[in-house]
Amino acid sequence: MVKTQSFKLVLCLVCSIILNIFFLFKVGGEWNLSWSKRAATEAEAVAAISCSGHGRAYLDGLVLDGNKGPVCECNTCYGGPDCSQFFPDCSADANGGDPLFLEPFWMQHAASSALLVAGWHRMSYSYADRSTISIELERHIRKLHDIVGNAATEGRYVVFGAGSTQLLSAVVYALSPDNSSSPARVVASIPFYPIYEKQTDFFQSVDFHFQGDTSFWKNNSDTDTEIIEFVTSPNNPDGQLNTAVLHGPNVKEIYDHAYYWPHFTAIPAPADGDVMIFTLSKLTGHAGSRFGWAIIKDKDIYQRILTYLTLNTMGVSRDSQLRALKLLKVVLATGGREIFEFGHETMRKRWENLNKVISTSKRFSLQKITPKYCTYFRQIRGASPAYGWLKCEKQEDQHCYAVLQAANITGREGSIFFAEDRYVRLSLIKSQDDFDLLLDKLNRLVAREEGPRTM
Amino acid sequence: MVKTQSFKLVLCLVCSIILNIFFLFKVGGEWNLSWSKRAATEAEAVAAISCSGHGRAYLDGLVLDGNKGPVCECNTCYGGPDCSQFFPDCSADANGGDPLFLEPFWMQHAASSALLVAGWHRMSYSYADRSTISIELERHIRKLHDIVGNAATEGRYVVFGAGSTQLLSAVVYALSPDNSSSPARVVASIPFYPIYEKQTDFFQSVDFHFQGDTSFWKNNSDTDTEIIEFVTSPNNPDGQLNTAVLHGPNVKEIYDHAYYWPHFTAIPAPADGDVMIFTLSKLTGHAGSRFGWAIIKDKDIYQRILTYLTLNTMGVSRDSQLRALKLLKVVLATGGREIFEFGHETMRKRWENLNKVISTSKRFSLQKITPKYCTYFRQIRGASPAYGWLKCEKQEDQHCYAVLQAANITGREGSIFFAEDRYVRLSLIKSQDDFDLLLDKLNRLVAREEGPRTM
Repeated sequence: MVKTQSFKLVLCLVCSIILNIFFLFKVGGEWNLSWSKRAATEAEAVAAISCSGHGRAYLDGLVLDGNKGPVCECNTCYGGPDCSQFFPDCSADANGGDPLFLEPFWMQHAASSALLVAGWHRMSYSYADRSTISIELERHIRKLHDIVGNAATEGRYVVFGAGSTQLLSAVVYALSPDNSSSPARVVASIPFYPIYEKQTDFFQSVDFHFQGDTSFWKNNSDTDTEIIEFVTSPNNPDGQLNTAVLHGPNVKEIYDHAYYWPHFTAIPAPADGDVMIFTLSKLTGHAGSRFGWAIIKDKDIYQRILTYLTLNTMGVSRDSQLRALKLLKVVLATGGREIFEFGHETMRKRWENLNKVISTSKRFSLQKITPKYCTYFRQIRGASPAYGWLKCEKQEDQHCYAVLQAANITGREGSIFFAEDRYVRLSLIKSQDDFDLLLDKLNRLVAREEGPRTM
Repeated sequence: MVKTQSFKLVLCLVCSIILNIFFLFKVGGEWNLSWSKRAATEAEAVAAISCSGHGRAYLDGLVLDGNKGPVCECNTCYGGPDCSQFFPDCSADANGGDPLFLEPFWMQHAASSALLVAGWHRMSYSYADRSTISIELERHIRKLHDIVGNAATEGRYVVFGAGSTQLLSAVVYALSPDNSSSPARVVASIPFYPIYEKQTDFFQSVDFHFQGDTSFWKNNSDTDTEIIEFVTSPNNPDGQLNTAVLHGPNVKEIYDHAYYWPHFTAIPAPADGDVMIFTLSKLTGHAGSRFGWAIIKDKDIYQRILTYLTLNTMGVSRDSQLRALKLLKVVLATGGREIFEFGHETMRKRWENLNKVISTSKRFSLQKITPKYCTYFRQIRGASPAYGWLKCEKQEDQHCYAVLQAANITGREGSIFFAEDRYVRLSLIKSQDDFDLLLDKLNRLVAREEGPRTM
């Protein structure tokens, strides 16, 4: 009797000790966490809010009266408190360039991409070397270009901007003559990204003017006036690997390489323009962080850009730089393999699916992109552009945007890119929900071409 | 014998169970932490790096070969791997406007001000309402002004910028006539913050030109040309609560209220200019986050500013906005009491100590600031300006900067503020180390006035 009791006690003791060891083992790392606990708990609580896979809650989301946590922010055509409601009659939104196709990648890499910012992190205007550019981040950017092989960085300068947006403008200022009687002509090849013209017009500088399409200046013999040519490669909207159209001692190119990443294109060789612009938005998908960089060959130009950036914003937010560093560390951990395989695979599938639908149509066509050898993947890779550049082929469909709109599809008018309105840009880089909806509406539209079919 | 054994077993069991309960209780909150653990652990490890109280290590600091963690970044005149080495012959740096006097406040509020950013946080270009302005953050900013009583916000618009720097420029663009034959005249009252002139000159717009000191335009009867007057209150460099100098139907004021917080001045009444600019830099001390805001009365002006911000940077980094929100939540948790008492007390003491030294000198003088009733603290508060505006009184000391430099003190020349070089601005808002060093060098300099004293 006493023995059995002793045996039971020993058993209980053993169990309890095992539980203790389990606690010690399980808790391990965070045993010593102190001041960071609250922030970590808060972030995990928000991440745990269920939005049915059709939305997400953010730490700085709206908090409605009576609610403890922030509300779900739903994908287009989804609603309700947990985004579970689907609105089938709602328009597919293929308008904007929000790179949400990469959001699932970051959700899958939650632990390595999370960032804890201390309250006293980088309060100064400058880093220890008195610059506004993080040396660690610059080092990671150079390493990334070396690994991807998409840009020559050796012996060149790197500057940071609030997205490529700020840099496009900074570089135009830096390349323009100072107080000259003939301001620089800023040009681009149709179809082109509209911001080039909008910025140049809005800032109304005495030093430069937007002067339209490159083709107009091709046979122009006036070499006294400086020309600044935007070369977008791959091009937005049509995904082509554009090269400079104008040449001569008075022509300077700005290479906008926002999309020159293995997600969207084969990488035939490292780009080596004198002025090249990249952005985090289309690399990791973090458009909201407003972080971009330029790679500059000439020291004087580099210093003029720095002056612009100082007077405009005193450099890029240290919070954005810290975030970019964290994200690039995740990208580099596998030599880019994980993110570029994920990105390319997602974009390639979307492009294939879009082509499958459009190929059955006589009313619409898409741009052709030839597969090329990719030095990064070391194989020929199928096309995977960021946008479909859709053309309405029928004589009467002059306003292609309206044709799509009537079928509940919102694209972006060709005229916005200074092309004919027979074209529409369809964004393929948004969320999977957005793309699925686009495909579904396009399918219905194409199916109606030959009169109603049996679905 | 058996009974004693049983007793021992029970004792062990009880102890073990108590330990189990302790584990459960102690671990509590973070028991469920998963993906955020790594980031939290990493941040705490960096924060635990000892820099002897004369520096700090940052998450994105330089990592030297062979080291695991980032290096210490030391305050001026401190060095060595842990910043414990003091260089007594080094120059006191009272030049820049780094608001590090608030750094200890955030270190004391580590838990409430820490922020964990998920890898997928706010990847979009816009918030749910398609704007680039966080509604939650705007709500907190309005609440803060209501509590502090330093600005009227009701019925007005709020826009965000990358620090006040970007907004100063955005507002000049927005207030200038479009394509008019007579560009707006941009003016300010000497001594003034040099960026007003530098920005206006650098951006070379056809719509505005910098035209110097307000006094020149005081009796000017030309009312056809628009005048944009910068009114800095409190003024940088001299801390005075400036008011507009020019008046008339063609005059528009930009109120730069960067320093209009209880740290630096009594708050006599809410500011209610048509265009008012504030910045996080001088409120919480986070200059590196590049976050500011403007409060705008007129809808058209507000919309022109939004256009500028969209074309310039597509709004402010969502990372900066998230950080600003977190910091403002800490500020608001005590109705501003904790931070403003800390800030005012620090600045008041520094001002008193500086005055004590200068009052014993015949060679130098400081600006006078009259104590005023502060509606926030509900009492008359002694002066606590951000800068000392030092004057060299001796006839021969025309270049005051050089006089100080010879005594190992680096200030900022009066001519940078368009004033006489008989003046020098001394920054009082930097780290305690910087201020202590400044005071020490000034003490020695003043002590030498009457020949060597017994120290």
